[in-house]
Amino acid sequence: MKLAFNKEKLTTALGIVSRAIPTRTTNPILSCILFDASEDGVTLIANDSEFGISTKVEGIVSEKGKVALDARLVSDIIRKLEGGEELVNIETDQTFTTRISCSDVLFTIPGRDGEEFAYLPQIEKEHRLCLTQFTLKEVIRKTIFAAALNDSNKMMGGEFVNIKGRVATFVALDGHRVAVRNVTLREGDETFHAIIPGKTMNEISKIMEDDNEKEVELFFSKNHVLFSFEGTMVLSRLIEGEYFKIEHMLSKDYATKLEINRVKLLSNIDRSTILIKESDHKPIILDIGDQKLALKVKSSYGSMDGELPCEKTGKDLLIAFNPKFLMDALRAIDDETVTLYFTNAKSPCFLRDEHDSFVYLILPVNFVA
Amino acid sequence: MKLAFNKEKLTTALGIVSRAIPTRTTNPILSCILFDASEDGVTLIANDSEFGISTKVEGIVSEKGKVALDARLVSDIIRKLEGGEELVNIETDQTFTTRISCSDVLFTIPGRDGEEFAYLPQIEKEHRLCLTQFTLKEVIRKTIFAAALNDSNKMMGGEFVNIKGRVATFVALDGHRVAVRNVTLREGDETFHAIIPGKTMNEISKIMEDDNEKEVELFFSKNHVLFSFEGTMVLSRLIEGEYFKIEHMLSKDYATKLEINRVKLLSNIDRSTILIKESDHKPIILDIGDQKLALKVKSSYGSMDGELPCEKTGKDLLIAFNPKFLMDALRAIDDETVTLYFTNAKSPCFLRDEHDSFVYLILPVNFVA
Repeated sequence: MKLAFNKEKLTTALGIVSRAIPTRTTNPILSCILFDASEDGVTLIANDSEFGISTKVEGIVSEKGKVALDARLVSDIIRKLEGGEELVNIETDQTFTTRISCSDVLFTIPGRDGEEFAYLPQIEKEHRLCLTQFTLKEVIRKTIFAAALNDSNKMMGGEFVNIKGRVATFVALDGHRVAVRNVTLREGDETFHAIIPGKTMNEISKIMEDDNEKEVELFFSKNHVLFSFEGTMVLSRLIEGEYFKIEHMLSKDYATKLEINRVKLLSNIDRSTILIKESDHKPIILDIGDQKLALKVKSSYGSMDGELPCEKTGKDLLIAFNPKFLMDALRAIDDETVTLYFTNAKSPCFLRDEHDSFVYLILPVNFVA
Repeated sequence: MKLAFNKEKLTTALGIVSRAIPTRTTNPILSCILFDASEDGVTLIANDSEFGISTKVEGIVSEKGKVALDARLVSDIIRKLEGGEELVNIETDQTFTTRISCSDVLFTIPGRDGEEFAYLPQIEKEHRLCLTQFTLKEVIRKTIFAAALNDSNKMMGGEFVNIKGRVATFVALDGHRVAVRNVTLREGDETFHAIIPGKTMNEISKIMEDDNEKEVELFFSKNHVLFSFEGTMVLSRLIEGEYFKIEHMLSKDYATKLEINRVKLLSNIDRSTILIKESDHKPIILDIGDQKLALKVKSSYGSMDGELPCEKTGKDLLIAFNPKFLMDALRAIDDETVTLYFTNAKSPCFLRDEHDSFVYLILPVNFVA
């Protein structure tokens, strides 16, 4: 195999596929990226059994072939090469020993037979969802924080995607909160749902661009989802099983409605966390009165008392929350003013907008006033 | 005590004195910053027995007094306050309970009696050295890397400062290398020397500004050095004892002289470190020939071969170094071309310029060609 690349383009492609390299593995082939120039052009592939990425990269193929190279090593080498006008040359011999050269320097590293490498499986494209990359990135950012990625409950580590005609609903939850975002599609008349691993959603949002023009297609089979955009394909297993019934949780009844400036509320809560060590689970207490929201935190470090103007409808209420959960939801909202709905101090609070484009449910916590 | 501050000015002052707060201590008063408004104006002080900082901060004193506040807590609180036009108010009662308020928020934290707090000791100003802050920062950056800050040999963790009339010499070394920088002073006719702890030099260079106009004065007593600039005073103990005799080490004889582009040499060595784990101490081998320097690194990951044009005078030479030591010295030099002097493969290499403004000595390592 004998290839030549522009350094910047190769670096970008390596950055994309490296996201499918597991941080720790005992199987050396899983730490490798396949350089596949056996057919037309050059494709880079990384793949463990759960999650795989392939991306095409522009390159000159003087001799066809393929080789698997250690991902970290080859990425580090390419990144440190001179680049610029000079092309990066990658050459492999029969023993898969690979010579990487550019300008005044030559690296010689061992490679592995490309035949050892598992390609991404072909999947049945049963369902299709099309979004702009920007929309998908945003909807992931605005929901995935509520998933419990390290929880033993696998379902809670996933993001539920529900398509009904031209509405796509994205849901993530842990035992204490739920994040729901609705996206209106430009096209579509399908009805299906799937649970995508949270890790996949995080990785895909790092690979995609913040571009409101460029699209990404999602294809679903029974057990897989394939993200396809600009020469890149990301394939992930789906989480099997029935997701939680969230309709029952999302009541629209309320006894207290609070309208408040989002940024001021967020920075007031953020400040209070200075007094809270993660381990000691101190809540922030909201005292909701007419025109005035008082916030209080008390810990072994000291206490904070804040006060913000607000619009209140309904009953006064004293209620406490994990400040992190409130902050996560407030950060996921773009509006200047947010509306919070409460029933009582033991029942969940809802943040939602008029158009039902989002709902954030947060359970309150016990507290001593 | 009742004070009011502009948030930004208070944040800057807290940032400066916090550098004297030890990262770990069992004595709670050492984790505190003293707010001293008992005399004119407001001074913040942090002080452990080895190293202390005091800085004046502009503030409105409505009621004199002093209080010691936990450094981390008070810094976090001030940083997170709204600020802008609104002043930050700090008020302490007889129990040293301290109320910090700004705009819509009030923090209440415990304080400690300022009387518990040890002020910086007064020192005899026996000797004086005056530099611009920029010059001192630069000379620290260009030498301190060679000191062995964590070594059991306390002397190696210090920076030797030697003043002879209008020349100040700064020296740092560990068992493998020596860094020497000479600075010409605008004024001065003193002769003295001292060993300043490397930690002090690192902290002082973080506090000072990159300003070639602003000066810093250093006053030396038998056991202390005091840095004084713009309302800030940094006091540090000196390291006692006799420093190493470096004159004997700095021979000017050589058998091979190599002139080479500094940036190209640096990036070529830097690249080679991809193949080197810190633990396995692989050297970089320099093969110095006519007009050509070949560089080679070989490790379990693979090998690198580099080649650079150079000017050589004297004998050919094959010699090996710890690549980090070469890189540290090359980064501390500003010139486009560097000159390296060698005697043989077992003797130190010297990097120096014509004006003797710097000398970097690096010991070679054994290698298998």
